[in-house]
Amino acid sequence: MKTQVGIIGAGPSGLTLALLLQQKGIQSVIIENRSREYVENRVRAGLLEHNTVEVFDGLQVSERLHKEGLVHHGCYINYNGKSQRIDFAKHTQKEVTIYGQQEVVKDLINACEAREIPIIFEAEAKEIKNVESENPAIHYTHLGEEKVIYCDFVGGCDGFHGLARKTLPKDTYNEYKIEYPFSWLGILAYSVPTYDELIYAYHSNGFALASLRSEKVSRLYLQVDNNDSVENWSDEKIWNELENRLGITLDKGEVFEKSITPMRSFMIDNMQFGRLFLAGDSAHIVPPTGAKGLNLAVADIHNLAQGLIEFYESGSQESLENYSKKCVARVWRVQDFSNFMTYLCHKQAVEGSFESLLQKSKFDYLTISEAYQKTIAENYVGFPLDTFV
Amino acid sequence: MKTQVGIIGAGPSGLTLALLLQQKGIQSVIIENRSREYVENRVRAGLLEHNTVEVFDGLQVSERLHKEGLVHHGCYINYNGKSQRIDFAKHTQKEVTIYGQQEVVKDLINACEAREIPIIFEAEAKEIKNVESENPAIHYTHLGEEKVIYCDFVGGCDGFHGLARKTLPKDTYNEYKIEYPFSWLGILAYSVPTYDELIYAYHSNGFALASLRSEKVSRLYLQVDNNDSVENWSDEKIWNELENRLGITLDKGEVFEKSITPMRSFMIDNMQFGRLFLAGDSAHIVPPTGAKGLNLAVADIHNLAQGLIEFYESGSQESLENYSKKCVARVWRVQDFSNFMTYLCHKQAVEGSFESLLQKSKFDYLTISEAYQKTIAENYVGFPLDTFV
Repeated sequence: MKTQVGIIGAGPSGLTLALLLQQKGIQSVIIENRSREYVENRVRAGLLEHNTVEVFDGLQVSERLHKEGLVHHGCYINYNGKSQRIDFAKHTQKEVTIYGQQEVVKDLINACEAREIPIIFEAEAKEIKNVESENPAIHYTHLGEEKVIYCDFVGGCDGFHGLARKTLPKDTYNEYKIEYPFSWLGILAYSVPTYDELIYAYHSNGFALASLRSEKVSRLYLQVDNNDSVENWSDEKIWNELENRLGITLDKGEVFEKSITPMRSFMIDNMQFGRLFLAGDSAHIVPPTGAKGLNLAVADIHNLAQGLIEFYESGSQESLENYSKKCVARVWRVQDFSNFMTYLCHKQAVEGSFESLLQKSKFDYLTISEAYQKTIAENYVGFPLDTFV
Repeated sequence: MKTQVGIIGAGPSGLTLALLLQQKGIQSVIIENRSREYVENRVRAGLLEHNTVEVFDGLQVSERLHKEGLVHHGCYINYNGKSQRIDFAKHTQKEVTIYGQQEVVKDLINACEAREIPIIFEAEAKEIKNVESENPAIHYTHLGEEKVIYCDFVGGCDGFHGLARKTLPKDTYNEYKIEYPFSWLGILAYSVPTYDELIYAYHSNGFALASLRSEKVSRLYLQVDNNDSVENWSDEKIWNELENRLGITLDKGEVFEKSITPMRSFMIDNMQFGRLFLAGDSAHIVPPTGAKGLNLAVADIHNLAQGLIEFYESGSQESLENYSKKCVARVWRVQDFSNFMTYLCHKQAVEGSFESLLQKSKFDYLTISEAYQKTIAENYVGFPLDTFV
């Protein structure tokens, strides 16, 4: 098979890339190693930056998002029961939208289908060849057969465990990682949120986050030890501890998903080699405290699409050459913000230690400083897509 | 001898306290274990917050300060040669004043003399007695004789190594400290500053600070290891390394003071017991990166004088009872800011590590965020004296 841009991965990155290219008449083919059903139901992020919604608006894939998504103009940051609202509207004149990543993926896949962008599900990428030439090739298997996509460029949108990063020569990048000494026990529940905006809560027992997916589905998290397991957490124990840490009454509905996720920060400082370009989780992971993973992926894709469109329209490779640099500048901002939010809100130091009281002093500072509130608001809502050169 | 308020220490805290009380007709006596010459020449801080200058204005001791002091409306924060100005005027409509602590002390001592406030120099406090009663007593020695000041209240303004903190019962406070893994090599030089505002510079070799004391005297610092010694640093080597880290040409004048100071944070969370009240360095030390030591002392004294005046005018002990709480709230803000500035500007992590690049990302953030700049400006200039309850 031959196409202009071969895309590995039908997550938000790959799908958005294909749709942005299609708008300018550039052909692509997506291969995805999972089934359509799997990717459409994979529970991931659920908070869209203003920027991300704008990209989806531009693609005309946001009709359902605007109908079903919940717009939030702020969030709460609590410290042992004391609450400070961060007013996004006041500080940034922008907002965020609550809409599950799996819903985004469904909308994007539907749009690809309608626009005749081929997605080959259950197709496993095996090798990416000739990326230093003008004719790269993606070797993959599908229904037991070995196949090849010949293309001009490869979009490596295949996530943290994907082939794209493994294909980058080791000497072209540095790798950075932090493993945090805590994890998140997360639940999805048929529970009417009793809070109107997200609550990030520091508590002596550990962090808790009240989030949601819709008007009927709550998404809630508790900080737990890295070696903890879901078996230690009955639904009742989870609900009680959530109420305790959040300091509010919750609608204790049916829990239909329960899992523990370790917190980590990861990135590489080069996202391209020859005609292979990485985007999203294949190049960086951030702890979910800043709600940035999906948004950062879409920002990468915005840059990549811009570069590819410029190339096909004018032959110029300038934007493509600067792709990595531009993405990585935003990645650093997001890594720092996600790290900051993580350390701000999690219990790390012994209660009453100098370190824990310096942490408390930051919450106290939040209550008196509009500027400090604004630093959180502007990072949370997301800097405009072309902020970073 | 009998007085209303017995004050130990003729540094900025003790002198300011005596002058504030004298304005309201409250008597005090200051004892100081050093000579007048010594305290008038002791090199310490040199940057006065807007608040501090206001207190001195209120005392009418700021004539020379306004004549000789240099008003700064901003400062620079550099990262490996790239410079970002923090505009105090824009963000806070306030400014700071460069004026050496020893000049402040001279002005305050002169005012005490003129206003007939007794200061007994070379008088060593030996014991503070009966602070739980209404008649405390300060036992001290002067010219080989044992003497006593009987008073209503004791002001413990005797610095980090003083008697006041040792007199506080151990079970009335928690103690917090951080020893940083670096020190400051500081010089004073007859050198015309070639910079108009302070420069805080991160450099791969370590932190440097370009400060000044007057239009003819520069005050400059280099980050060095804790086990380094001044013998390793010839004047030439210091000037060269300063120019290297600051990225500017300096007037390499005569160095007349050279010393190494370790960086530390220290505080106790209770500053009073019975009728003994601690203020300034006796209760807290902050690393000099935030230029807060002297200013925090004056803020303490503002609260203490308020409490004592209220007591003598109305008999109410309410403000005195809340003294510690009010001071400590500001101390936490200042500890956090000083700690933040210290970690922001010093080399701590291996160049190129995730940690060092997160540090770099904060400088990059400063260049794009007015809000982030403002957080530094408002802390640096100092929150209004009655911000903290």
